[in-house]
Amino acid sequence: MDATHGSREHHDGECRDDGDGLAFVPGPIGPDGLRQIDAYWRAANYLSVGQIYLMANPLLREPLKPEHVKPRLLGHWGTTPGLNFIYAHLNRVIRERDLDMIAVWGPGHGAPGLVANAYLEGTYAETYPDVAHDLDGMARLFRQFSFPGGIPSHASPELPGSIHEGGELGYSLAHAFGAALDNPGLTVACVVGDGEAETGPLAAAWHGNKFLDPRSDGTVLPILHLNGYKIANPTVLARIPREELRSLLVGYGYEPTFVEGDEPAIMHQAMAAALDAAFDAITEIRIRARRGEAGRPRWPLVVLRSPKGWTGPGSVDGKPVEGTWRSHQVPVAAVRENPEHRAILERWMRSYRPEELFTPDGSLVPDLAALPPRGPRRLSANPHANAHRGAPLRLPELRRLAVTVPERGRTKAEATRALGVYLRDVLTLNAEARNFRIMGPDETASNRLDAVFEVTSRAWQEEILPEDDHLGRDGRVMEVLSEHLCEGWLEGYVLTGRHGLFATYEAFAHVIDSMVNQHAKWLKSARDLPWRRPVPSLNILLSSHVWRQDHNGFSHQDPGFIDFVANKRGDTARIYLPPDANCLLCVMDHCLRTYDRINVVVAGKQPALQWLDMDAAARHCAAGVGIWDWASNEGEAEPDVVMACAGDVPTQETLAAVDWLRRYVPELKVRVVNVVDLMTLPARETHPHGLDDPTFDSLFTRDRPVMFAYHGYPWLIHRMTYKRTNHGNFHVHGFIEEGTTTTPFDMCVLNRLDRYHLAQAALRAVPGLGARGEHAEEALRDALAAHRVHVCRAGDDLPEVKDWSWPDRHGDEHPDRRRIEADIMQCDTAGAEEPRPARTADDRACNA
Amino acid sequence: MDATHGSREHHDGECRDDGDGLAFVPGPIGPDGLRQIDAYWRAANYLSVGQIYLMANPLLREPLKPEHVKPRLLGHWGTTPGLNFIYAHLNRVIRERDLDMIAVWGPGHGAPGLVANAYLEGTYAETYPDVAHDLDGMARLFRQFSFPGGIPSHASPELPGSIHEGGELGYSLAHAFGAALDNPGLTVACVVGDGEAETGPLAAAWHGNKFLDPRSDGTVLPILHLNGYKIANPTVLARIPREELRSLLVGYGYEPTFVEGDEPAIMHQAMAAALDAAFDAITEIRIRARRGEAGRPRWPLVVLRSPKGWTGPGSVDGKPVEGTWRSHQVPVAAVRENPEHRAILERWMRSYRPEELFTPDGSLVPDLAALPPRGPRRLSANPHANAHRGAPLRLPELRRLAVTVPERGRTKAEATRALGVYLRDVLTLNAEARNFRIMGPDETASNRLDAVFEVTSRAWQEEILPEDDHLGRDGRVMEVLSEHLCEGWLEGYVLTGRHGLFATYEAFAHVIDSMVNQHAKWLKSARDLPWRRPVPSLNILLSSHVWRQDHNGFSHQDPGFIDFVANKRGDTARIYLPPDANCLLCVMDHCLRTYDRINVVVAGKQPALQWLDMDAAARHCAAGVGIWDWASNEGEAEPDVVMACAGDVPTQETLAAVDWLRRYVPELKVRVVNVVDLMTLPARETHPHGLDDPTFDSLFTRDRPVMFAYHGYPWLIHRMTYKRTNHGNFHVHGFIEEGTTTTPFDMCVLNRLDRYHLAQAALRAVPGLGARGEHAEEALRDALAAHRVHVCRAGDDLPEVKDWSWPDRHGDEHPDRRRIEADIMQCDTAGAEEPRPARTADDRACNA
Repeated sequence: MDATHGSREHHDGECRDDGDGLAFVPGPIGPDGLRQIDAYWRAANYLSVGQIYLMANPLLREPLKPEHVKPRLLGHWGTTPGLNFIYAHLNRVIRERDLDMIAVWGPGHGAPGLVANAYLEGTYAETYPDVAHDLDGMARLFRQFSFPGGIPSHASPELPGSIHEGGELGYSLAHAFGAALDNPGLTVACVVGDGEAETGPLAAAWHGNKFLDPRSDGTVLPILHLNGYKIANPTVLARIPREELRSLLVGYGYEPTFVEGDEPAIMHQAMAAALDAAFDAITEIRIRARRGEAGRPRWPLVVLRSPKGWTGPGSVDGKPVEGTWRSHQVPVAAVRENPEHRAILERWMRSYRPEELFTPDGSLVPDLAALPPRGPRRLSANPHANAHRGAPLRLPELRRLAVTVPERGRTKAEATRALGVYLRDVLTLNAEARNFRIMGPDETASNRLDAVFEVTSRAWQEEILPEDDHLGRDGRVMEVLSEHLCEGWLEGYVLTGRHGLFATYEAFAHVIDSMVNQHAKWLKSARDLPWRRPVPSLNILLSSHVWRQDHNGFSHQDPGFIDFVANKRGDTARIYLPPDANCLLCVMDHCLRTYDRINVVVAGKQPALQWLDMDAAARHCAAGVGIWDWASNEGEAEPDVVMACAGDVPTQETLAAVDWLRRYVPELKVRVVNVVDLMTLPARETHPHGLDDPTFDSLFTRDRPVMFAYHGYPWLIHRMTYKRTNHGNFHVHGFIEEGTTTTPFDMCVLNRLDRYHLAQAALRAVPGLGARGEHAEEALRDALAAHRVHVCRAGDDLPEVKDWSWPDRHGDEHPDRRRIEADIMQCDTAGAEEPRPARTADDRACNA
Repeated sequence: MDATHGSREHHDGECRDDGDGLAFVPGPIGPDGLRQIDAYWRAANYLSVGQIYLMANPLLREPLKPEHVKPRLLGHWGTTPGLNFIYAHLNRVIRERDLDMIAVWGPGHGAPGLVANAYLEGTYAETYPDVAHDLDGMARLFRQFSFPGGIPSHASPELPGSIHEGGELGYSLAHAFGAALDNPGLTVACVVGDGEAETGPLAAAWHGNKFLDPRSDGTVLPILHLNGYKIANPTVLARIPREELRSLLVGYGYEPTFVEGDEPAIMHQAMAAALDAAFDAITEIRIRARRGEAGRPRWPLVVLRSPKGWTGPGSVDGKPVEGTWRSHQVPVAAVRENPEHRAILERWMRSYRPEELFTPDGSLVPDLAALPPRGPRRLSANPHANAHRGAPLRLPELRRLAVTVPERGRTKAEATRALGVYLRDVLTLNAEARNFRIMGPDETASNRLDAVFEVTSRAWQEEILPEDDHLGRDGRVMEVLSEHLCEGWLEGYVLTGRHGLFATYEAFAHVIDSMVNQHAKWLKSARDLPWRRPVPSLNILLSSHVWRQDHNGFSHQDPGFIDFVANKRGDTARIYLPPDANCLLCVMDHCLRTYDRINVVVAGKQPALQWLDMDAAARHCAAGVGIWDWASNEGEAEPDVVMACAGDVPTQETLAAVDWLRRYVPELKVRVVNVVDLMTLPARETHPHGLDDPTFDSLFTRDRPVMFAYHGYPWLIHRMTYKRTNHGNFHVHGFIEEGTTTTPFDMCVLNRLDRYHLAQAALRAVPGLGARGEHAEEALRDALAAHRVHVCRAGDDLPEVKDWSWPDRHGDEHPDRRRIEADIMQCDTAGAEEPRPARTADDRACNA
């Protein structure tokens, strides 16, 4: 159903409804109701304008003077009256149908309207008692908005009922779908601005309806708000022909209803009818689905086309304002300096007839106070928006799931496969609570987490064919080839108090840098608000990590997501690099118990040597960093060299290097330090996990060379440790990314050779190793060269590299020792060549 | 027109067309043509399978043995036969219509097919003579694929004709639109996989048709390839009802034609008919538009629905493979170990009847060799895909556009406004060449670049209303509220040799982290290929930067994009922080002359003090870093303290701090160092712009305290300088991001107070300043406190902060000096309070 569109000529500063009341128009709302809902809308609009402009004289009880106006005007009016209109109508259907509803407001910079509504509902004063329903409270409400010491100009965590700031556009609809999952009674109204609708993440998010089970999930009701303009440009969806827009929305799988126009009375009736029809349809879909009837739901969607800056000044300085891009921020700006502008503002505010809306002491007139929903039915007080379902997960007994490690470094396991079993049990233990989900861009099985499919499936509402692999209507694994959607869904899910894990490619985690950034900011701000409940942590597993991109290209090589997360301030970010399967289980078990954090865990899926049994892993992960005595041979004295490592592949390479060193130069005293929790490295002032300096020094020594094999770019280790005593002796071996005629496969080979480079670097860092040192270096060079030749010919690693394991005997007891000693005897070290650079252009020509 | 769908039962390893030829089906192609195009397709398929599997015996002239097969199988078959099918049909229309066409292949991991086609067209052998059309060449072609020393498994820069790697999914269509701009004769065929279609950037990119002028731009022909599955999941667009998909594509503004099925003969005719219809429609649209006829074009689009792994093994080990997710990578895997699998591979390869396609010596049979287009009409040799339009820009005379700076630091200008005038002239000078565009998310005017609208407008093909601001069909400014689209269009534009600038919010530049990452990788790889022409640089202007987010929230605060770019290897990244308008002009003028780089320029739009006239700016920017003698008072001796700065706001704060120090402690010897080019800071081994150590030390001294005021997060400066002699004395004051009850406006105030913090830090770092130092510190504390009180009350800075300018007299000549001396005489320093912490919780309560 489409409302008709009517518009009028405006004179400077004239406002729609300029004191002329509202003629009745027939529709679902009766005459009293119509008057009331319009009055409520006017009240919200009045309070919105007040926040943007005033620092005193809130009820205009005296003529407006320059000193009543804020010196800097920093709000956004354009979208606000439309949001207020929607809010009033959502209130109506909530009351009429006793709905459990939260709302996600994509245009979060319309916060003056959302704050106004929370104030009208009483929630604001309940939360912030000094912003009460009286003249002082109203003055404070106005003054605090975008003012020093006050509140930000977006729908930030400070706003009760908000789970979405809307500062960076694109994520409203994904958040809404995430919030609706596993909340079968809930409706999430999601207002999508036509600006935001141009973003990629939003354009993809419409397809969330393919993943929402009408039996066990809630409903998302998108309200596409076309106000025609972004900042200075028209919007795409507002300018394409209406039939094309309808076709687009039908193509996205919705049943759209259009509400279009600018005459309030007509629009109220049209909006009420549209929402009534939408909720009738939602009820019908739910009933049929829950009865078990087959059929694919077409969820309703409302398109609201209303003027930008609706009810604001029609024109200013002879230029049209209402309905144009000039309404975007502050429609009339020189209010302190220019009496005409001030008069426009005053006329505008008075056009809402505040004297009919508020009592002289600043409280709401009883008629209006009775209008909004009550208690937790209020959009600003719905407990879903404050993580009320935030109970801890039930977690399995770790010891039962331990990977058996009979001898350190001699058996292999796939870390993520073990994690899959653990996650399967997490799903089982919380099946009834329905508060745990796994998201990912179609990599759950490829990342070897497929044990989860023993107890659940992949969520899918479209047709299911016989050859499909574990698809199900109520699957708890959400797979879509969009990191934005996975991340956005998970954010919406945890912000409403549930738990989850997002598993994705390490290199492409950068796709969600900005989303993670915004979530970190939300968490940081929310944590400072005592009334905000803690939110389960956002857990990100980076598997298919950069060291094993055999199937892919240079494009798949980038360990920089860690750097990005490490830039986040203070207590929000955690980065874990478990060296083996049991450590991965311990780390994940910890992450799933935490709240208000962003936990990044990096763990490979390939078969890899296992180092720690579950007891040792638990102790090691609890400490976050530690000396691996069993791999070290330092004895009582300080070691000659510290071999440090962080990450599964670097750990394996380090131990292979240590094995080499201990075989070739058994008198060299080596200490092995493994880092699981990267945040132990920076100073404690910087991060709560940071080691104090004495502890750091006791691990990394004050003066011995440290070879640090690290999973990512080496700079991060330097920047975290540059203030440490021994930083001058840190040699960090990070990931090398390479392009051009070096296939990823090459890179894996080169990176796998890090054992030789690490051993080489250690030998060079320790003086006075004499003939043995020289012989060891020569042997290293030979091994490197032999490996390269083999790889270029055979397309695979040499068996001694591929199949290396930690020996059961070391030093002089190692079976190789006799041969090595004999070699040293024969070796004419004087004739040794200059060491050839580790990686040369020649290496690339091996296929020529 | 829709083809009918037919399918067959498969037995293990059986392949479609298993030697049984092709029955004629009527359609646009005659019997000979049908046989030929099918043979060409079979040849491409054969060569694709060969690349994935074989390292010897390329023409199967002996029975397949384990040692002919690569030890590791690392390609993607699933999408490849579909790409080969499309390629063959694009060749047909190119020849029949003599089309100028390039193709963007979204599923770039179908590279075996694209490499095969470049080989069939002869381009591959022309580019890499050792991969010739003979048995040796074919063996090399097979062996090199995803093999050490060979080529990556994606459509990487090594592939002639490629401008799009397709490793990270989402950007194909944006690249295609970018390439089509200002190339009125060009068609860019863009294959969109149904996996990629789920990503946000791709979902938004369909709307590129709203920005393409049919008169002066080329055409994008999207080919949506539905093969049904991603890795393990079905795809959304392949599973929704066909009518819903049609509605979606119509809603995106296209006229779709469906080609669906799996019987080759039927599919060839259907595809040929679809492409004929598409190019008839394109011709019609172009003619009508260029005749000046009104009307909104509906561009054609082809939907190809074909089985995943089409023509591959029907089933393996009793499980269906062709047409299922099992075809995604390697459909039959245990080929070396398992004779049955090996037999399946051999049967599969022989099903293409290689003996009919290749002569015994490995060259193409003449019939097929004659089939592809000739010379530059070949998709793999079209010069657009090698930046042939890459002529330098004509650039305006800088001096003519200089901002007048009569006295340093005493007049204000808006740096980006000056840049707008410069860009206007760039547009004018290159109007005829049509090789320069500006992209941005609706911020060109808001970023005060609006002088460009004197000579051009914003590109817009939809309806234009009277109140719209500078919209035009052929506008050279592209504004859409999607950083992904802006970045993707610009990448496509520069990769085809044209120039441009992307201006965007600093905080939200993280949205495109991953895209910039991929572009950097492309540039790095492409630069090593001598046959690849240089590509104009990707220029990114970060305005509305983090220091001035008065209108916005915590969400808008993040200077970390610089950190991200600084992580890119070697010679690709450049980061410039011009301190004023003339420096911005010099920097941008330089950037627009460069090739193969990613230039990031950070510059504010607010009125700010100007420091350098054009001559001085040119010298300063050429050096990248330098001592500002005119602001320093060090004389002959080494300074007591170095006040360094990088960024426009930090520079102003530093000079205000220096003014304070010189007023209060005139005997303190201060050196001011300004950094424009951030890449001068790291060591020369790390970046070619890095200063050598002696030069670095001559600027920053070997042992004096350095107060470094920096635009972004402080860690980056530390990580760039930790190896420098004097790093231990570096105190970096970076940007502070804060949330919760600290409005952005507060932050601007706090950040503006950095002048006091910098002065304070300098005083504390220099010992022995005695009573004067103590008095200066006290004065600083008082000034800070007074400012806070004023800001909380008035909502604006104190006038002496807001209106500060660089004085014309310094030290003892400064008019304040007499008062300060008198104060020192009176001051009872013994009674001074403990310094209060710079920023306390109290500051936040100022509105209470």
